[in-house]
Amino acid sequence: MNITKILNNNVAVSRNAQGKEVVVMGRGLAFKSRIGDLIDPSKVEKTFTLSEPGASAKFLEIASSIPLQHMLMAERIIGHAKLHLGKKLSDSIYVTLPDHISGSITRQQEGIVLSNPLKWDIRRFYPDEFEIGCKAVAVIEEETGIHFDDDEAAFIALHFVNAEMEDDTQSVGGAYQVTCIMQEVCAIVHDTFQIDFDESSLSYYRFITHLKFFAQRVLSGTHYDDDEQEMLEVIRLKYPAAYACTERIGEMVEKQYHFAMTSDEKLYLTAHIARIQPAREK
Amino acid sequence: MNITKILNNNVAVSRNAQGKEVVVMGRGLAFKSRIGDLIDPSKVEKTFTLSEPGASAKFLEIASSIPLQHMLMAERIIGHAKLHLGKKLSDSIYVTLPDHISGSITRQQEGIVLSNPLKWDIRRFYPDEFEIGCKAVAVIEEETGIHFDDDEAAFIALHFVNAEMEDDTQSVGGAYQVTCIMQEVCAIVHDTFQIDFDESSLSYYRFITHLKFFAQRVLSGTHYDDDEQEMLEVIRLKYPAAYACTERIGEMVEKQYHFAMTSDEKLYLTAHIARIQPAREK
Repeated sequence: MNITKILNNNVAVSRNAQGKEVVVMGRGLAFKSRIGDLIDPSKVEKTFTLSEPGASAKFLEIASSIPLQHMLMAERIIGHAKLHLGKKLSDSIYVTLPDHISGSITRQQEGIVLSNPLKWDIRRFYPDEFEIGCKAVAVIEEETGIHFDDDEAAFIALHFVNAEMEDDTQSVGGAYQVTCIMQEVCAIVHDTFQIDFDESSLSYYRFITHLKFFAQRVLSGTHYDDDEQEMLEVIRLKYPAAYACTERIGEMVEKQYHFAMTSDEKLYLTAHIARIQPAREK
Repeated sequence: MNITKILNNNVAVSRNAQGKEVVVMGRGLAFKSRIGDLIDPSKVEKTFTLSEPGASAKFLEIASSIPLQHMLMAERIIGHAKLHLGKKLSDSIYVTLPDHISGSITRQQEGIVLSNPLKWDIRRFYPDEFEIGCKAVAVIEEETGIHFDDDEAAFIALHFVNAEMEDDTQSVGGAYQVTCIMQEVCAIVHDTFQIDFDESSLSYYRFITHLKFFAQRVLSGTHYDDDEQEMLEVIRLKYPAAYACTERIGEMVEKQYHFAMTSDEKLYLTAHIARIQPAREK
């Protein structure tokens, strides 16, 4: 493999056996090298091939501007996440995570610690991703000796939620805003029924999953059809409390996000709320 | 509302207040009527508005060819399903379900009972839809006195799975074939580990959900990227048993469905299998 571009002493661009552009990293790998020079395979710690065109250019930018150690830590964390989440992640994670981690480390060294107001909601809505965040914090501590707490784990978790969403839905609106809306909706549901939900139940998991896509629709202004007027009338009579709760949620998203819920949205949201609400109406 | 088309004594086409074409149904509603006649609102038992263009024409065909009672039973079952599944269903369910129910009733009256070889798998993979199938069987018995067993409940469940898939993924391949592939994959996993899985666990639910989309990709020949070769090597070493199981699944889908799994497919499938496999490798 020959060097086609040098980014810094540790990072260079080359082509793999299939002629695809790859980024190679390793301590001193490109030190005193020129374009066209052979790369010493023993110095290569990591080779990246990115398939999303947008991600590639940004990745090169990040790779040349942050410490190699931060890149390699991020890569190790992403590898762990791919194994444990079992979900396809957007290549953008190779850009956003190193950038985020490097920024956090710099801030921490300067004594600036950001608290994460959505920490508890992230842990509740995305338990698997939160676990990856905790693992990430452990990896960082192991490799740098710098200790972060759960707030940082939650920030990292959101990067993974984002990388899943992009792949799943091409939605705009980041994971943070999605989590905010989910949190606001859950607060209304909780306030309406005055109970704690069984967060380990399948019904709750399905409710949360529905909410995630609902929040994405709210943010992107995507509307379901408006065909379920008649059915909604049925559900209104059958589950008055769940329906009233949906109406409150409708007012909130209308006021705060200028999103008008269609009868379809109301129907499906009411159905989910009815499934997790206390036994009386069922 | 004026009649714009007469399908039979009980079914006519009209326009609603928004000028949208609707199908109105009710006993004797169009008896001795002509195009342009006013519809007696007291005779209308049900009004349908279908938004998917393809579904409308087929719906008219079904509505004019099967007994009104079967149409209305199907509508009642679909209403129940919308409330309880909390998922958007394709309009095609208004065509396929009445058609299916009417056919089953006719066969039953002729003494022909079809057994459903996938019954247990449908109950296992789609518990919510299976419950709707059971409710449907109860509705049919209540309204006609005809008794069906679980095999029929499972057939009806598949219609709902289909109506969900069409909406979710625009996938080709029906729910029956998807269930077949899921069943074959589960058999391999079960055979590899010789254990029963905790079917009420979230990991299992996520595994099944992943399998559903995997099966849809197999049937539609849609391939994930092939970028995870390196990561797959890591997982192969870390979870050798889960990886070996994935390889067996890969051989099966290659042989039976001519589907070549990419490294991405193998990675995510192995990750899911590792999560539900017995503790030793974790």
